[in-house]
Amino acid sequence: MKKLTFKTTYADNFLGENFLSPIKKELEIAQEKIFAKTGAGSDFLGWVNLPSDYDQKELQQIKVAAKKIQKQSQTVVVLGIGGSYLGARAALEALRSPNYNQLEKKTPNIYFSGNTLSADAFAEIVAMIGQQDFSIIVISKSGTTTETAVAFRLFRKLLIDKYGRQEANQRIYAVTDKSKGVLKEMSNQEGYTTFVVPDDIGGRYSVLTAVGLLPLAIAGINLDDLLTGAQEAQKNLKKGNLQNPAWQYAGARQLLARKDKTMEVLSYYQPRFRQLSEWWKQLFGESEGKEQQGIFPASVELTTDLHSLGQYLQEGKRNLIETVLWCKKSQQTITIHEDKENLDKLSFLSGKTLDFINEQAFKATLNAHQEGGVPNFIVEIPEMNEWQLGYLFYFFEFSCALSAYLSGVNPFNQPGVEVYKQKMFKLLGKN
Amino acid sequence: MKKLTFKTTYADNFLGENFLSPIKKELEIAQEKIFAKTGAGSDFLGWVNLPSDYDQKELQQIKVAAKKIQKQSQTVVVLGIGGSYLGARAALEALRSPNYNQLEKKTPNIYFSGNTLSADAFAEIVAMIGQQDFSIIVISKSGTTTETAVAFRLFRKLLIDKYGRQEANQRIYAVTDKSKGVLKEMSNQEGYTTFVVPDDIGGRYSVLTAVGLLPLAIAGINLDDLLTGAQEAQKNLKKGNLQNPAWQYAGARQLLARKDKTMEVLSYYQPRFRQLSEWWKQLFGESEGKEQQGIFPASVELTTDLHSLGQYLQEGKRNLIETVLWCKKSQQTITIHEDKENLDKLSFLSGKTLDFINEQAFKATLNAHQEGGVPNFIVEIPEMNEWQLGYLFYFFEFSCALSAYLSGVNPFNQPGVEVYKQKMFKLLGKN
Repeated sequence: MKKLTFKTTYADNFLGENFLSPIKKELEIAQEKIFAKTGAGSDFLGWVNLPSDYDQKELQQIKVAAKKIQKQSQTVVVLGIGGSYLGARAALEALRSPNYNQLEKKTPNIYFSGNTLSADAFAEIVAMIGQQDFSIIVISKSGTTTETAVAFRLFRKLLIDKYGRQEANQRIYAVTDKSKGVLKEMSNQEGYTTFVVPDDIGGRYSVLTAVGLLPLAIAGINLDDLLTGAQEAQKNLKKGNLQNPAWQYAGARQLLARKDKTMEVLSYYQPRFRQLSEWWKQLFGESEGKEQQGIFPASVELTTDLHSLGQYLQEGKRNLIETVLWCKKSQQTITIHEDKENLDKLSFLSGKTLDFINEQAFKATLNAHQEGGVPNFIVEIPEMNEWQLGYLFYFFEFSCALSAYLSGVNPFNQPGVEVYKQKMFKLLGKN
Repeated sequence: MKKLTFKTTYADNFLGENFLSPIKKELEIAQEKIFAKTGAGSDFLGWVNLPSDYDQKELQQIKVAAKKIQKQSQTVVVLGIGGSYLGARAALEALRSPNYNQLEKKTPNIYFSGNTLSADAFAEIVAMIGQQDFSIIVISKSGTTTETAVAFRLFRKLLIDKYGRQEANQRIYAVTDKSKGVLKEMSNQEGYTTFVVPDDIGGRYSVLTAVGLLPLAIAGINLDDLLTGAQEAQKNLKKGNLQNPAWQYAGARQLLARKDKTMEVLSYYQPRFRQLSEWWKQLFGESEGKEQQGIFPASVELTTDLHSLGQYLQEGKRNLIETVLWCKKSQQTITIHEDKENLDKLSFLSGKTLDFINEQAFKATLNAHQEGGVPNFIVEIPEMNEWQLGYLFYFFEFSCALSAYLSGVNPFNQPGVEVYKQKMFKLLGKN
């Protein structure tokens, strides 16, 4: 199987030849921190062997629950925020479509809620569900995350009003702590079907647990292929050598960070990768953005944003790294037809596919941005399917852990997230 | 009418009292460049007096065309990229909804296309249109912008196949140069209804021309209110003094840029403002990102991203400015209901509205981020409607022009955008 490649060709003039040599020792130490569990945050390394060690019984239960939900409902509301929704949404959009709900399909609509305090966002999802049968997946380790808990109270009432409490309880699926917390207690009392958020896997590393897999199974996504792809990555990235693409990515970005590159822009050429870029932003931003350091993660959708942030990328402050997530194959093929009148002067493109034109834009942009002073990395996948996405998720997770260790921080904590929460709870009068 | 305010309260410890005094002289000069047309790019100042001087005859023609489109079609495809679509999309989502097409309404569906080379994105819009009657608005000054021209060729064929050439031509509306270019020539030959992209207004400043107004009129948006709000801003921001909120915003951000703040993050608390943040990113990024300088514009959706980039904002590299676009009123009101069992331990919020909780999150976050070392600006609007949005658009445009002049660059050119285009055309064999 052709798989992900990582290239620094368009960053050569910033990195030089054999650029990894000076950082090789550090990479070996970082790699050891991951596998010997000797680094900061080592209680949260459950994602490392997750693909190969996946609990097959749980996987089976997820598939059974998904089938049940597909039968009982035309619509599923997935409640979760941050790591409790970004992975599933990223995969749904990348593998199916950002327009998934609006396209014809045999699987239920999926709405993501519980990730905002916006009244309009909530009301609109209620309106879009309308009279359809629906089920709820609520994802929260503690059950007390405000955005998710609020949405759960509101949607649970709608469900009970519609079906009565007993049937409503059959339509609620909780992904939460294995034994404690508000949501787990509710689940026990009400008899919700539950799945576990493992103790040793943080939110941003949880896409390949029930957190991500349950919603994805409902959309008909092949979980086995997703996990097999991740397994292959697990096997490949374990190798402690300079050919390891995660070593190259983590090493290259940290070397550039030490040369005063302060931002990394993830660029991609398919709108269906937008949520993947949001998942990536959480992964890297939350893992590395601490102790007053970290490369700020931003993203641009190309070629769209070449007509927006393109000017900045080409000629702005030269503190940028650009990482291009490239996949040359769309799922559909569109060919520019002949038009003999050629009123639009576009016949130089007749017979060409959109994929071909997009690829020329990609190549031209790599050249242009490199010449403009931006080092470009390429993360290339041969096509977008479950296997490739599983590989990609793991590649980014592993690279991120390495990169954070190289920068000297704990990749797995997020102490800063509590600050606004405590202030907010005080304002809200929570004891 | 209560209107937009700009506050630096949560940036005081970075700016100090009377912070504008040292930069007052520069602001006077920048203001004069705009009104005396003595600065770089002064051929592109048509937006300054646009609200007050709007051609009433054209406005009437836009309304007539919109009514015709509403009658002839259930769906409109708007083709344009960069400044030729971001403003309309921003306004449509802010005033109606990001879920506009999926919600019940009396006005046609609106799909934005011609802004990508993705085959999947194109094919999915075709699928969503299905058998519905549709019209096309094509927006391009030259008519040769690749993404838009390609989509136009493809959609035009669909239209001709469906209706025949004569009726198809009645369903195509072009917003283009007043006299020259490929699209203008096609329009003349085929008899499309046309509107003008003025010569003296660049794409990113064009939302209040036919570029933005025609699509918005179709969605039933009140153009008069939009322009009246912008007129009020035009009147207020003309005043050359330190109470001018645009002086405060432009002055404060440039003072912080001189203290090594290299990024500005626009944060907002309503998903419907997301596209507005994309419009803002083009406006500031394309105006200021040149000559190896410029504040990089990024955005976060809160409270959503407090569980993602929140960690970075709180504790990452301290090179950030945060500008909060705040509107305390949603269009809908949702109240957390009582639940005596209180299984979810959420009854401290019973009786509270989502707007209230969102506001406490906003206040808590301002405090938290300021304490964490990020200066926060607040751009507050009392509610989101046409008038306020017209004011807001103009406020950002004016602030951006001032800010770019303060930083010493031409606010109105975008020389860097051509670089990848030339390389791409070479790869595509265009003569």
